[in-house]
Amino acid sequence: MIPHQTVARPQAMHSVASLAPLPYNQAIMNKPLPTGPYKGVRDFYPEDMAIEQYIFDVWSQTAESFGFEQYGASVLEPSELYKAKGAENEEMVNEQTYTFVDRGDREVTLRPEMTPTAARMIAGRAKELSFPVRWYATPNLFRYERAQRGRLREHWQWNCDIFGTNDYTADIEIIALAYQTLLNFGADQSMFQIRLNDRALMTRLYHALGVADEQITAITRLNDRRNKISSEDYRAALNEITNDEALSEQIILMLDNSDEQTDVMTGLAELGIDNVVFDKSLARGFDYYTGTIFEIFDTDPANNRSLLGGGRYDNLTSLFGGTPVPGIGFGMGDVGMRNFLETHDLLIEPITAPTLMILPMSIEQNLAAQKIALPFRVAGLSTAVDMSDRKLGKKLSAASDHLSEYAIVVGENEIDGDSLTLKNLTTGEETAGTLDQLVEKLTG
Amino acid sequence: MIPHQTVARPQAMHSVASLAPLPYNQAIMNKPLPTGPYKGVRDFYPEDMAIEQYIFDVWSQTAESFGFEQYGASVLEPSELYKAKGAENEEMVNEQTYTFVDRGDREVTLRPEMTPTAARMIAGRAKELSFPVRWYATPNLFRYERAQRGRLREHWQWNCDIFGTNDYTADIEIIALAYQTLLNFGADQSMFQIRLNDRALMTRLYHALGVADEQITAITRLNDRRNKISSEDYRAALNEITNDEALSEQIILMLDNSDEQTDVMTGLAELGIDNVVFDKSLARGFDYYTGTIFEIFDTDPANNRSLLGGGRYDNLTSLFGGTPVPGIGFGMGDVGMRNFLETHDLLIEPITAPTLMILPMSIEQNLAAQKIALPFRVAGLSTAVDMSDRKLGKKLSAASDHLSEYAIVVGENEIDGDSLTLKNLTTGEETAGTLDQLVEKLTG
Repeated sequence: MIPHQTVARPQAMHSVASLAPLPYNQAIMNKPLPTGPYKGVRDFYPEDMAIEQYIFDVWSQTAESFGFEQYGASVLEPSELYKAKGAENEEMVNEQTYTFVDRGDREVTLRPEMTPTAARMIAGRAKELSFPVRWYATPNLFRYERAQRGRLREHWQWNCDIFGTNDYTADIEIIALAYQTLLNFGADQSMFQIRLNDRALMTRLYHALGVADEQITAITRLNDRRNKISSEDYRAALNEITNDEALSEQIILMLDNSDEQTDVMTGLAELGIDNVVFDKSLARGFDYYTGTIFEIFDTDPANNRSLLGGGRYDNLTSLFGGTPVPGIGFGMGDVGMRNFLETHDLLIEPITAPTLMILPMSIEQNLAAQKIALPFRVAGLSTAVDMSDRKLGKKLSAASDHLSEYAIVVGENEIDGDSLTLKNLTTGEETAGTLDQLVEKLTG
Repeated sequence: MIPHQTVARPQAMHSVASLAPLPYNQAIMNKPLPTGPYKGVRDFYPEDMAIEQYIFDVWSQTAESFGFEQYGASVLEPSELYKAKGAENEEMVNEQTYTFVDRGDREVTLRPEMTPTAARMIAGRAKELSFPVRWYATPNLFRYERAQRGRLREHWQWNCDIFGTNDYTADIEIIALAYQTLLNFGADQSMFQIRLNDRALMTRLYHALGVADEQITAITRLNDRRNKISSEDYRAALNEITNDEALSEQIILMLDNSDEQTDVMTGLAELGIDNVVFDKSLARGFDYYTGTIFEIFDTDPANNRSLLGGGRYDNLTSLFGGTPVPGIGFGMGDVGMRNFLETHDLLIEPITAPTLMILPMSIEQNLAAQKIALPFRVAGLSTAVDMSDRKLGKKLSAASDHLSEYAIVVGENEIDGDSLTLKNLTTGEETAGTLDQLVEKLTG
């Protein structure tokens, strides 16, 4: 169920090994390689990468507007980082992550989430950092599932965390950041809903009903699936945990009474964030949460899923010894983000073409075209030379089709003389001028 | 010598498995986890990430000024992508990469270089793409070496490639892009040297001396080490290949006569790029190069190494069948780039602190401070609230120490009244105004 070894032992080798002794060209003739990516991961051709980069840019800009600093780390992490939290995590690591042992006998995992990495790094400098600190990153994360389920094995996830304070306004700030991000993508409050719960409050409410701690953990996990199963199945599963139908009934009543007014709710309302509901059934996957937990759901029935989730975890850095540093944060995936933008028609078709195309009349002018392109490039304008051997008409229509804004044709006259003609490909307008004048016009 | 398996078999498990049955807190008490990263990879705390991001930004902006489009792909690639090029590559993959087999019996490698991925993607859309295309990416790459050699197992490398033309001006453009990048970092021509060679030309020169093709490959590999060994050792190794001392002598004379004037050399000079030498001993590591090859060296004796290398490879997409698409490109690593900037004192200390700090008099004003921060954040100004329970004086000096530019103190008066005071932390100057006025002042 986990990646297994490749070794120099011949019997473990893949059949492609039989191609090895053949010279290069024979290998080609025998069996062309497939052009697709590894199963369950994505290639990003420029038009998709432009969307991905747009999403990353809005994420980064919003994080920085809230004073968050970017950090980063390798996708390779010691496996113990994920296993140390208990037996269940050990199973998760073995079955759901890419994990292998290196020749130094180190067990290594392709990170399945970023929070443990952030906690590790915070713990490593707990004495030097001036808390609270605000950190963000946009790592790629891996999970090892059967790809045929249609789920990706790699995705990118924006992570934002505040470390070193348990003030409730940190919870408000982190949710306000998530909220502002969606607004910065052009969304309005009607398009999404913030669902809020509090693990500490829930523990108090369960205790008040006489529910034991192990049962609370089991009920929390069950609640994670509550929206996906029938109310009968839910009740049956709850009875199995409590072994007490009356208690189950009380629990359901308690969960369904969600009109809590916590400080976090009130504070968000004061910031004008009104699309918030308290949802006592909200569970979140990770065991390490200790207080506020939240998710943001798309309100469009066509894309009824969670866009973002997070919560407060006040003990995670304890794994590394030393004084615990409290934290609160969230993660938001690239796939969910893009789905949301597409569902609400917020995604603008990106243009990846150069702003200015330099079009040599023939390939003899290709070098001259490079010389003309140079000062535009130095000034930072996206400028390319069409160095193909197409006819000029084809070059012009290609530039226009790819949505370049301007073109300059370079023939013998343009090389010998002093004057160039800049053509606006949208309006057809032409401007004559020296190279310096045209650089000034487009970049000045 | 390669990563080996972790499986559910107990004997293969790491000793940390013994912690699994223990509850969370006991695990902590018994053995705190280390806070360092996996061996041979780096953590990027914000001050290092800011430098990394600055390098990536200049790379991306320069690529885009040359009309290059960004693409991306997963770090996971089918291993055959690297093995298919021959037996030697098979050995390289097994010994020098992270390679494992997944449960679908797919052999997977953490990519050691980006060019094969780019070639795979180009081949996959060879019929739809309008050539030439210009692509760039900044992937992380992995190599599996003994970490104690001091070499990193993961680095980030900027890759730029032009596909679909073998016009010599593409070679000039790609070198001009590399050159302009260093200028955009603030370097001048004296700080680096471009070394140029041409595999096709070298093949002709070797053939003219009667050197056979297998010998050419061996000599090229030997030349890759020529600067690192004595001239005696070089001559001895060459004799071993040629088995003909007179021929070896002729080869050395040919290699040392480096005053070639190729079209690429001449064209670069026409673009004002004069710090170029032709170096017939320049070899480059990869077998797939077919024409122009080049490297850029730091001229500072303190950092005498290659910053960047690349070349033309006209057959790489043939591995995937179909019509070959010629390509030329280069890769430039983050570590070498940072070394170069530090060596030439071109690296500006990055500031990662928020531009504006909102400082509550006490934690009772933390929520009010969030409300005041909001419109600055919406306007895109990097704004943070100091939500700690430090005294105001400490908050002010922390904001100043971290090089924030402005602060606004929030007490009872500021909440009740209409007026706020903006403090310039450099000049000490204070400006009173309403929230709207101050937002306008800083972001308008």
